[in-house]
Amino acid sequence: MPRFIKKLSKKKGLPPGTLIHVGEEKEQKVISSVIHYNAQKFSQKIIKNLDEYVLSDGKDEITWINIDGVHQTEIIEQIGNNFNIHPLVLEDILNTDHRPKIEDFGEYIFIVLKMMYFKGKKNYIQAEQVSLIVSENNVISFQEQDGDVFGPIRDRLENNLGKIRKMKADYLAYALIDSIVDNYFAILEEVSEKIESLEVHLVTNPTPNTLQQIHNMKSDLIFLRKSVWPLREVISSLERRDSKIIAESTQIYFRDIYDHTIQVMDAVESAREMLASMMDIYLSSISNRMNEIMKVLTMFSTIFIPLTFIAGIYGMNFQFMPELRWKWGYFGALGIMAVTAIMMALFFRRKKWL
Amino acid sequence: MPRFIKKLSKKKGLPPGTLIHVGEEKEQKVISSVIHYNAQKFSQKIIKNLDEYVLSDGKDEITWINIDGVHQTEIIEQIGNNFNIHPLVLEDILNTDHRPKIEDFGEYIFIVLKMMYFKGKKNYIQAEQVSLIVSENNVISFQEQDGDVFGPIRDRLENNLGKIRKMKADYLAYALIDSIVDNYFAILEEVSEKIESLEVHLVTNPTPNTLQQIHNMKSDLIFLRKSVWPLREVISSLERRDSKIIAESTQIYFRDIYDHTIQVMDAVESAREMLASMMDIYLSSISNRMNEIMKVLTMFSTIFIPLTFIAGIYGMNFQFMPELRWKWGYFGALGIMAVTAIMMALFFRRKKWL
Amino acid sequence: MPRFIKKLSKKKGLPPGTLIHVGEEKEQKVISSVIHYNAQKFSQKIIKNLDEYVLSDGKDEITWINIDGVHQTEIIEQIGNNFNIHPLVLEDILNTDHRPKIEDFGEYIFIVLKMMYFKGKKNYIQAEQVSLIVSENNVISFQEQDGDVFGPIRDRLENNLGKIRKMKADYLAYALIDSIVDNYFAILEEVSEKIESLEVHLVTNPTPNTLQQIHNMKSDLIFLRKSVWPLREVISSLERRDSKIIAESTQIYFRDIYDHTIQVMDAVESAREMLASMMDIYLSSISNRMNEIMKVLTMFSTIFIPLTFIAGIYGMNFQFMPELRWKWGYFGALGIMAVTAIMMALFFRRKKWL
Amino acid sequence: MPRFIKKLSKKKGLPPGTLIHVGEEKEQKVISSVIHYNAQKFSQKIIKNLDEYVLSDGKDEITWINIDGVHQTEIIEQIGNNFNIHPLVLEDILNTDHRPKIEDFGEYIFIVLKMMYFKGKKNYIQAEQVSLIVSENNVISFQEQDGDVFGPIRDRLENNLGKIRKMKADYLAYALIDSIVDNYFAILEEVSEKIESLEVHLVTNPTPNTLQQIHNMKSDLIFLRKSVWPLREVISSLERRDSKIIAESTQIYFRDIYDHTIQVMDAVESAREMLASMMDIYLSSISNRMNEIMKVLTMFSTIFIPLTFIAGIYGMNFQFMPELRWKWGYFGALGIMAVTAIMMALFFRRKKWL
Amino acid sequence: MPRFIKKLSKKKGLPPGTLIHVGEEKEQKVISSVIHYNAQKFSQKIIKNLDEYVLSDGKDEITWINIDGVHQTEIIEQIGNNFNIHPLVLEDILNTDHRPKIEDFGEYIFIVLKMMYFKGKKNYIQAEQVSLIVSENNVISFQEQDGDVFGPIRDRLENNLGKIRKMKADYLAYALIDSIVDNYFAILEEVSEKIESLEVHLVTNPTPNTLQQIHNMKSDLIFLRKSVWPLREVISSLERRDSKIIAESTQIYFRDIYDHTIQVMDAVESAREMLASMMDIYLSSISNRMNEIMKVLTMFSTIFIPLTFIAGIYGMNFQFMPELRWKWGYFGALGIMAVTAIMMALFFRRKKWL
Repeated sequence: MPRFIKKLSKKKGLPPGTLIHVGEEKEQKVISSVIHYNAQKFSQKIIKNLDEYVLSDGKDEITWINIDGVHQTEIIEQIGNNFNIHPLVLEDILNTDHRPKIEDFGEYIFIVLKMMYFKGKKNYIQAEQVSLIVSENNVISFQEQDGDVFGPIRDRLENNLGKIRKMKADYLAYALIDSIVDNYFAILEEVSEKIESLEVHLVTNPTPNTLQQIHNMKSDLIFLRKSVWPLREVISSLERRDSKIIAESTQIYFRDIYDHTIQVMDAVESAREMLASMMDIYLSSISNRMNEIMKVLTMFSTIFIPLTFIAGIYGMNFQFMPELRWKWGYFGALGIMAVTAIMMALFFRRKKWL
Repeated sequence: MPRFIKKLSKKKGLPPGTLIHVGEEKEQKVISSVIHYNAQKFSQKIIKNLDEYVLSDGKDEITWINIDGVHQTEIIEQIGNNFNIHPLVLEDILNTDHRPKIEDFGEYIFIVLKMMYFKGKKNYIQAEQVSLIVSENNVISFQEQDGDVFGPIRDRLENNLGKIRKMKADYLAYALIDSIVDNYFAILEEVSEKIESLEVHLVTNPTPNTLQQIHNMKSDLIFLRKSVWPLREVISSLERRDSKIIAESTQIYFRDIYDHTIQVMDAVESAREMLASMMDIYLSSISNRMNEIMKVLTMFSTIFIPLTFIAGIYGMNFQFMPELRWKWGYFGALGIMAVTAIMMALFFRRKKWL
Repeated sequence: MPRFIKKLSKKKGLPPGTLIHVGEEKEQKVISSVIHYNAQKFSQKIIKNLDEYVLSDGKDEITWINIDGVHQTEIIEQIGNNFNIHPLVLEDILNTDHRPKIEDFGEYIFIVLKMMYFKGKKNYIQAEQVSLIVSENNVISFQEQDGDVFGPIRDRLENNLGKIRKMKADYLAYALIDSIVDNYFAILEEVSEKIESLEVHLVTNPTPNTLQQIHNMKSDLIFLRKSVWPLREVISSLERRDSKIIAESTQIYFRDIYDHTIQVMDAVESAREMLASMMDIYLSSISNRMNEIMKVLTMFSTIFIPLTFIAGIYGMNFQFMPELRWKWGYFGALGIMAVTAIMMALFFRRKKWL
Repeated sequence: MPRFIKKLSKKKGLPPGTLIHVGEEKEQKVISSVIHYNAQKFSQKIIKNLDEYVLSDGKDEITWINIDGVHQTEIIEQIGNNFNIHPLVLEDILNTDHRPKIEDFGEYIFIVLKMMYFKGKKNYIQAEQVSLIVSENNVISFQEQDGDVFGPIRDRLENNLGKIRKMKADYLAYALIDSIVDNYFAILEEVSEKIESLEVHLVTNPTPNTLQQIHNMKSDLIFLRKSVWPLREVISSLERRDSKIIAESTQIYFRDIYDHTIQVMDAVESAREMLASMMDIYLSSISNRMNEIMKVLTMFSTIFIPLTFIAGIYGMNFQFMPELRWKWGYFGALGIMAVTAIMMALFFRRKKWL
Repeated sequence: MPRFIKKLSKKKGLPPGTLIHVGEEKEQKVISSVIHYNAQKFSQKIIKNLDEYVLSDGKDEITWINIDGVHQTEIIEQIGNNFNIHPLVLEDILNTDHRPKIEDFGEYIFIVLKMMYFKGKKNYIQAEQVSLIVSENNVISFQEQDGDVFGPIRDRLENNLGKIRKMKADYLAYALIDSIVDNYFAILEEVSEKIESLEVHLVTNPTPNTLQQIHNMKSDLIFLRKSVWPLREVISSLERRDSKIIAESTQIYFRDIYDHTIQVMDAVESAREMLASMMDIYLSSISNRMNEIMKVLTMFSTIFIPLTFIAGIYGMNFQFMPELRWKWGYFGALGIMAVTAIMMALFFRRKKWL
C-alpha cells in the first residue's frame, strides 16, 4: 500500500514552488551526463560542476542532459535557474508520486512518465518517475536513480544506428519514451508467466498461498493500470499536438507508441479479467475439495453407525435374548453387519455420492 | 495466457522500423500469389522471385498480391521497398500481436485484422493476424500462414461471380474483410453450441470439469472481444472515411460489415452474461447437491443416535435393572427403538427436511 | 441459447447481396395483402400473383403492402426488383437475426424492428423480425409469419378511426411501430407478474426450481434488452431526422414512441436489478434453511453424546465398580442422564442457538 | 413490483391521443381550484363547473389551476380543449406511469414530475405523478390525488410571503417543483434512519428479516433513482432553456433545484453503496454465527469420542483382560478419561479453536 | 449514516432565500477576522462589531475576511447585505450539506469546498464545509468552526513568505483551496496506514472485527469520494475560466491543484479496489480457517469410529464367541485397533487431507 500514496503531507502548509523531494530518501550522489550530437559529431561528458550545464546554441546541435537522482534539491533548483523552468515544474520533478502527465509551456514541453520494474523479496511492481523537459534542441531527463534503461539509446547515438542522429530533439524524446513503454511489455510478460503458473497450481494444488498470490497480482495490476492509463492520454496528446517542438514527421512515431500503450492497457485488462475468473475457480475448487473430503468422511461414519448399533443391541444384558444363545448367533450378527455395510456402500454408489 | 501477450520484449532497445517477426516461429516457406483482373480478364500466378511483384499500371486493372506467411522478414522488407511502404507499417505487419487498427497514409490505407479459429487439443480460440494494404488499384494481403479463408473470393474473381470483377480495389478489400467477419459467426455458433451443451450438463450433472469449461469459455470470450471491439472502430472509420481510395458506392458495403460487427459484439456480450449467470447456477447447484447429501446422511445418523443410546442403557451392568429380567424386555426395547426411529422419520418428513 | 445467434454461417463465402433466408425454415405459404387508402376511400386485397404489387401513383393515395413470411426468397427478390430496393436491404430483410436499425436511402427509409412474444413449453421470450420500407406514399412491411399484430391498424384504416386515413405514409409507419412498442408493455407486464410470483416463492418456499426460473428470467431480459436498446436509437433517429419522408408534424408522435422505449428500458433495467437482488435473497435463504436444519440435527446429536458416554461407563466390566451394586444405581444413572440432557437444552436455548 | 410497470397494455391497439387513465382506479371526485394573483391582489375559488376555468387575460395577473385527481378523463379532455393543449400531452397526463420529462411546445412547457411518499403496511416508497403546464401567465398542475404538498405555496401566495406574488408564472412553476424536490430530502432522511437502524441490527442481532429489509430498501432505492435520474435532465433543461416563458432571472432558481437533485442522486447512490456493503456484512455475520455454533458443537462431540471409546474397550467381554481385575481399574479408567478430556480442551484452547 | 444526509427537511415549505442553518447546532460564538494586505503592508484585526466589515477600496489592497462559524444566521445575513451577495448564495453557505460547487456571479465567484478530518471515538472521516466568495480584491471565507487550517497562510501573509503578498485575491483563493486539498493527502495517508495494518491482520489473525473495520473504511471512502469527485470539476472550471477575477498567471496554479485532485481520486479508487480485494481475502481466510478446524475434528472422529465399532463387537454377549476365550484375544483386539488407527492416519496423510 505505501506504493499507492507517498508522504506528500510534508508539503502541507508550504508555499507552492517550494522544492521538497517526495519519495525514498537516498544517500548516493546525483550523477549527470551531458551529450551533444548532430548527424556528424557526438560528445559525452559526466558533469561534476553545476556551471558546466550548457545548452546547445543554434540549430546544428542537439543537447541531452540526463540526471540520475532527484533527491538533491539544490541541483534541480540550479538547473531550473539555468534553463528558466517554471517553479511548479521543478516541484513536480521532485514529487516522485506524480501520475503521468504532459504540460506545454510554449518554449518547452514537460512530460512525467513512470518506469516499471519488479523489486524486493515479495517481487512487487515498483515505479520510478522519469521526467522529461523537451525543447527544440534540448532534452533534459530526470530519473530517480541511475539505471541502464536509456543505455541502448546512448549506444545508438554513439554508434549512429538508425536515424536518431539525423533527427531533432523531438525524436530523442520519442526514443526515450519508446524505451520506457517497451519495458512495460517485459513487465507484462513476467505477469503473464506468473498468471500461467498460478493457473496450473489452481488445478493441481490450490492452497491459501495461491489466494495470497492472486491478491498480490491484482494489487500489482491496479498499480500498473494507474500508471498506464494516464500515459495513454499523454501520448495521444503528443501525437495530436500542434507545437513547434514536435515535428509532423515525428508524430507518426508517437502514434506507434500510442498503439503500444493501447496494447498494454488491453493486456492489463485481460489479465485482470483472467485473475477475477481465477479467483472464482480458486474459491470453487477449495470449497469443492473440502466438500469432497467431508462427504467421504461423513459417508464412512454413516456406514459404521448402523453396525455399531447392531453391536450395541447384542451388548444389551437382557436375560431373555434368544439370539445370544444361538450357536451361529455371533457369526450371524457379523454377517448382518457385513451385508448392511455392503448394501449401504452400493446405495451410495448408485446415488453417485461416492 | 500466452494468447494475451506475445514475446514483444525481444524488440526492446532496438530502433523503430527494425523488422523483427513477433509470433510463432515457422519453418514452412512463404507463398505469394499475384492476381491481375478487371471486368474482362483474370490472371493468377504463384511468385517465386521477389522481382516479379508488379503493381498494376493505370486504371484498367486491379492487382491483388497475397502473401501467406510473414516470418521471412526479408520478403516483407523487399515488398516494402518495391511499393514504398512506411517502415513502421512493415514493423506492424511483422508484429502479429497487434490489435485491429486502420491507418491512412494518403496513397494507401493500412488495415490490421484478426482471423479467428479453434485450435489445439483444448480447442481454444486462436487468432491469426491479417494485414491489408489498400491503394487505388492494388491490394496486398498478409496472412500468418496459408489458409483457405480467401479461397471463395479467388473463385468469385476467377468465375466472375457477383460484381467483384466490375469494381475497384476498395471492393476487393471489402470482400476480404467481409470474409473475415463472416467467419466470426461460425466461431460464435460453435461457442453457442458449447454454451448450450454446458447448460444441459449444468442441470443434469454438474462436475468440477463444468467449471473448468466455463472458465475456458470465459477466457475465449475475453480473447474474442479484445479482437472484435477495436474492429468495430476500424470498420466504422472505413465507412465514414473521406478518402479517394474508398468510393462512396462502396461505403454502403462497409456499413453492412459494420452492422455485422455490432451483431458479433452483441452475441459476445450476451454469451458473457449467459456464462456469468451459468456460473452462479453451477455454484448453486454444486452446493445444493452437496447440501442434499449431507442432509440425508446427517438425518440418517440422527435417527440412529437415540437407538444406540437405548442399546447403551440396557448394556449397563447395574445389578438392579428391573427391565433386564422382564421376559419381553428385549423385544420391548427393540419395539421402543422401532417406534422412536419411525417417529423421527415422520417428524423430519413433516418438517419437509426429507 | 439458439435465440442469441442464428445460423448465419451458411452465408459464409457468398457474395454480398445473395438472398438467403436466415431463420427457422417454414413450409407455410407467404401471404401478401395490399391496402390502398386516402381520407375518402379504402380498398384491400390479398395478392396471389407477384405482378399485382402496385405502388400508389401520385400524392392522393397511400399504399400499404404487408408480406407475412420471408422464407420464399423469390418473392422478396421480385418485390426488390419492382420497387428498386438495394440488394443489401433485401439481404437484411431475409436475415432475421438482425438487430433493430434504420437506414435512410433518400427515396425510402429502411427500418428493422423486433416483435416480441412468449412461446414454447418453457415460455421463453421469442423475437420475430419486422422490416419496414417507408417511402413518401408507400409502406411495405415484412413479417416472419402471419400474426394479428397489425390487425387493429387495419381496422382503424377500414373504419376510419382516429386521423390515420387523413395522414401520409409516415403516420402509417408510426402506427405500425407504435403497435410493436405497445406490445412490449404486455411482455413486461407478464415478466412483472412472473417476478412478483417468484418473489412470493422466495419467501415461502425456495426450491432449486426457483433458481432455474430466475436464470430463465435473466436470460429473457438479456434477450429483451438486446432488442430494445438499439430500438431506442432507431426511434430517436426517426424523431430528429431531416427527411422529406417524415413530416415535422409526425415527429412529435415518434417522440412519444421514444418516451415509451425509454420506459421499456427503465422497466427492463429495474427488473434486472430486482432479479439480481432476488438471486442474493434466494442463495441466502437456501443456505439459511440448510443451516437451520443442520444446526437442529447437530444439537440433537450433541445432547445424546454425553448420555451415551454415561451408558458406556456403566457398561464397563470392571470387577470393582461400586455404583453397580447400589440399589438405586440404575435409576440414579438415568436421572443423571435426564438432568444432563435438560441442562444442555437449557444452555442451548439461553445461547439462542435453538 | 407493480410499482415498476403499470397496466399500460390496455392502451394496446388504440389510436394515439385516445384518453385513457393508466393507474389506480379511484372513486373520489376530482377537485379543482383556481387562484388568480398579482403583487396587489389574490383570489381563490373551488371550481364546480367546467366552464369556469378561466385563464388570465393579459400581463397583469397570474392564474394557477390545480386539479387533484386525473381519473375522470372527461375533465382532462375539456381542459385540453379550453386551453388548446396537444392530445399527446393529455394522454401523458393520464398515463401516470410516465417518467419525469419536459417538452416545450412554444406556447407552453409541459413537465412531468414524481411526488414520493411512504405508503401501505410495508411502508414502501410510492410515487404520485404531478404534471405541470406552464405558459407565460398560467400554470395548470395535475395531481393524482388531493394532497397538501402545494399547501405552503398557497399560503405564501395568500399571505404574500417572499417575492412569489411579485414574480411571473415561471417562478410559481419553480416554487411547485422546488416543493416536490424538497420533499425528496424528507424521504431520504427516512431512508437514512432506516439504514442506520438496520446497521445496528446487523451488529447486534442479524436475522433473515434483516435480509428482507435490505432487499426492500434496495428495491425502494431502485424505484427512487428511476424517478430522480430523469428529473435531473428535466431541471437541467429548464435551467439552460432559451424560452420566452422562463425568464433569465428565474433560471438561477432552477440552478438551485438542479443542485438539490444532484444532492439527492448523491445520497441515493451513497445509500445504495452502503446497502451493498451491509449485505456483505450481513451474509458474513450470519455465516460466522452459524460457524461458531457448529465449531463449539463439533468440539464438544470430539472431546467425548475418545472417552466413549475407552468405555467401549472396558465393556468388551474378553475373558483375559488384566485391568478388569485391578482394584483401582475403574477409577483409573475414569481418571484417564478425565485427563484425556482436559488435555483435548487445552489443546483446542492453545490452537485458539475455542 | 447521518454523514450522508443532513436535516434538510426543516427547510421544506419555506420560500427560497430563507436563511436557515443546516448542520450541527453549536453554542460557541462566531469569530471573524479581517486581514488587509499588499506587497508593502499587512494588518489583521478580530471583529466584534458587524459594522466593522470593510472591503478594500481600490486596487492597492487585498482584504480577506474569515468567518469561523456559520450557525448565527444574522451575521451571515448582514455580510450578505454589506457585500451585496445573492440570497441563494447565503442560503448555500448556511446549508452545510452542500456538495462542492462553483458559481460565477460576474462580480464575484462563489466556491463551496469540503475540509476533511478524522473525528470521534470511531475515528470516522467527517467533513466541514468551507465557502469562499472571491472578488477582484476581496476574499470572504466561511468555516463551520474555528480551526487552524488557514493558519499557515496567515503566517505566510504576515511574514511575507513566497509571493502571496505580491499577488491578487485570486492567488489568495488559490492558497486557501490548496491548503484544503493538501490536507486530503494527510487523510489519505492515514487511510493508507489503516489499510496496511488491516492487511497484516488479514493474514495473521482475521476476526469479525476486521470485517467491521473494512466496512467502516469502505463507508469512509464512499464519503470521501462523494466530496472529492465534484471538487475535480470545480477546480477544472477555475483553471479554464474566462473571468476577470482569475488572472491567467494564476490559472497554472489551479492546474497544479487539479493534478492533486486527480491524484487524490486515483488514491481513493485504488484504496477502494484494495478494500474489495481484501474483503474477498477476508471471507476466504475466515472460511478456510473454519474448514481446517472442521476437517481436523472430523478426521479425528472418523479414526475413532471403527475403533469404537470393534470395541462394540467384543462387547456383545453372544455365548459362542471364540475370540473371547483366546488368551491374547484382548491384546489382539487392542492391536487390531492400533493398526486400524495408524492405517487410517496414513491414508489421510497420503491423500493430503491432514
